[in-house]
Amino acid sequence: RAIGRAVSLVEDNAPEAATLLEGLDRTRFDQALVLGITGPPGAGKSTLTGALTRRLRRAEKRVGIIGIDPSSPVTGGALLGDRIRMMNHALDPDVVVRSMATRGRLGGICAAAGAAMRILAAGGCEIILIETVGIGQSEMDIIRLADLTLMVLAPGFGDDIQAMKAGILEVADLLVVNKADLPGADKLLLDLATVFTDAAERDLRLLETTAGENKGVATLLERITLLAERCRKDGTLAARRRNAHALETVDWALEMLRPRLTELAEQVEHAPDPRLAAEQLLARFKTGTEI
Amino acid sequence: RAIGRAVSLVEDNAPEAATLLEGLDRTRFDQALVLGITGPPGAGKSTLTGALTRRLRRAEKRVGIIGIDPSSPVTGGALLGDRIRMMNHALDPDVVVRSMATRGRLGGICAAAGAAMRILAAGGCEIILIETVGIGQSEMDIIRLADLTLMVLAPGFGDDIQAMKAGILEVADLLVVNKADLPGADKLLLDLATVFTDAAERDLRLLETTAGENKGVATLLERITLLAERCRKDGTLAARRRNAHALETVDWALEMLRPRLTELAEQVEHAPDPRLAAEQLLARFKTGTEI
Repeated sequence: RAIGRAVSLVEDNAPEAATLLEGLDRTRFDQALVLGITGPPGAGKSTLTGALTRRLRRAEKRVGIIGIDPSSPVTGGALLGDRIRMMNHALDPDVVVRSMATRGRLGGICAAAGAAMRILAAGGCEIILIETVGIGQSEMDIIRLADLTLMVLAPGFGDDIQAMKAGILEVADLLVVNKADLPGADKLLLDLATVFTDAAERDLRLLETTAGENKGVATLLERITLLAERCRKDGTLAARRRNAHALETVDWALEMLRPRLTELAEQVEHAPDPRLAAEQLLARFKTGTEI
Repeated sequence: RAIGRAVSLVEDNAPEAATLLEGLDRTRFDQALVLGITGPPGAGKSTLTGALTRRLRRAEKRVGIIGIDPSSPVTGGALLGDRIRMMNHALDPDVVVRSMATRGRLGGICAAAGAAMRILAAGGCEIILIETVGIGQSEMDIIRLADLTLMVLAPGFGDDIQAMKAGILEVADLLVVNKADLPGADKLLLDLATVFTDAAERDLRLLETTAGENKGVATLLERITLLAERCRKDGTLAARRRNAHALETVDWALEMLRPRLTELAEQVEHAPDPRLAAEQLLARFKTGTEI
């Protein structure tokens, strides 16, 4: 598949990647909706992604899915398994699933995920779901590439919910209590309701799903559409796109600099203190000969 | 406490930080052992860290503990809770506990964690335990700062263990099956045994603990001592220290560049493609006026 090959070229940092990216049709990307899906392991993100995809397909939307696998060999398997379960869409040519690891790749993960989004959109995907485990700085950065972010939670995280609530609205547009059939779901919903100061906002942005049984998924999609529309009108979406562009740009730039800095750091005898060594490293950059 | 204040100064990127870091006694850091402790949430890392600390204290070792909290508001609470449980060492002046978040701080996390290690060592800590959840690129990078790494696992991760096994020996010196009293522990142990091709290595590097009951902790400490000795003799430790130094240096350098790059990226009208925009950004660096 052409889209898959294009993403691989970028991930492998192949020489053709630059030409490919610069040649992409930007209009389609501007019109596509990028939906970030995050939350702790076990909340049912992949099941929800699958359920959303089925519903989007019924509405004849072409869907792109980007799964970000954590870089650790310890937990890598968990998401990988989820990915495979999601592959029952594998035979549908209008669903493109792409999984990328945060480990052992050239280039920043934001740069790579951003490029994958652009390629998927140019390939015709009208909605792009980007799924990531909400742990780790690089994973949270990825969410900043999305137009809208869904935070998927489930009962059973105990007292951690209290620490979690602070700041949750900074990262999430929609709070989804998944596995709503499990004991504790109502309590979690009530608990999350307290983070909203405005009742109308709460009713719009907080909801329950049982993704495994397709319950609440239609409502979720309605809310996504409503919020996307609102963000488009009030300029939030445009602002987020600008921020995402800057984030991707800086990520590319830093990753372009990293090998050169690493090489220099290994070659030169530097100060025993790494902070001072870094200043010495950057001082060499000032000469303009090292870049 | 002086050590705590010093770490805070660095984390806050205070003007005094540079002078402080450059003035540190490096001999003590060279002699200290940095032990990385990683593994999935729920494996019992913090309990094991606590049990190891108690045993090290009995041997009159001064212990520094650095806990890396994941940056996500979702899971931040989990580790924070663990930290607090560990605080029963809080009244022991020879145990320094330091928790740092990966989110919302100035400077790279490797740079910050590296600086904390150096400050703790200079303050007299002979062994430094650095605990991190094994998810996310930045968290895995931190483990590369350690002299030795312990991977803590527990029964109940199901089939994920299969995907996990690949590459586990690249990141871990010791594989610890914790919660060895739970059903499935023996199966996990047998399963992990298959990653070793050498029986002697397996017997040295794979072991069981039940940290909550202090079982197996003495043996674990013996193995740590043995492996540390071996790494010192065969040059592995020196090589890891050199790599860690380079990693910290590059991390500092990139973080020093990031604000300037971000500012530039926001000011200048760049190409629609972020990769090309990054090249344009770096071209401006070449003039030597932007650094």
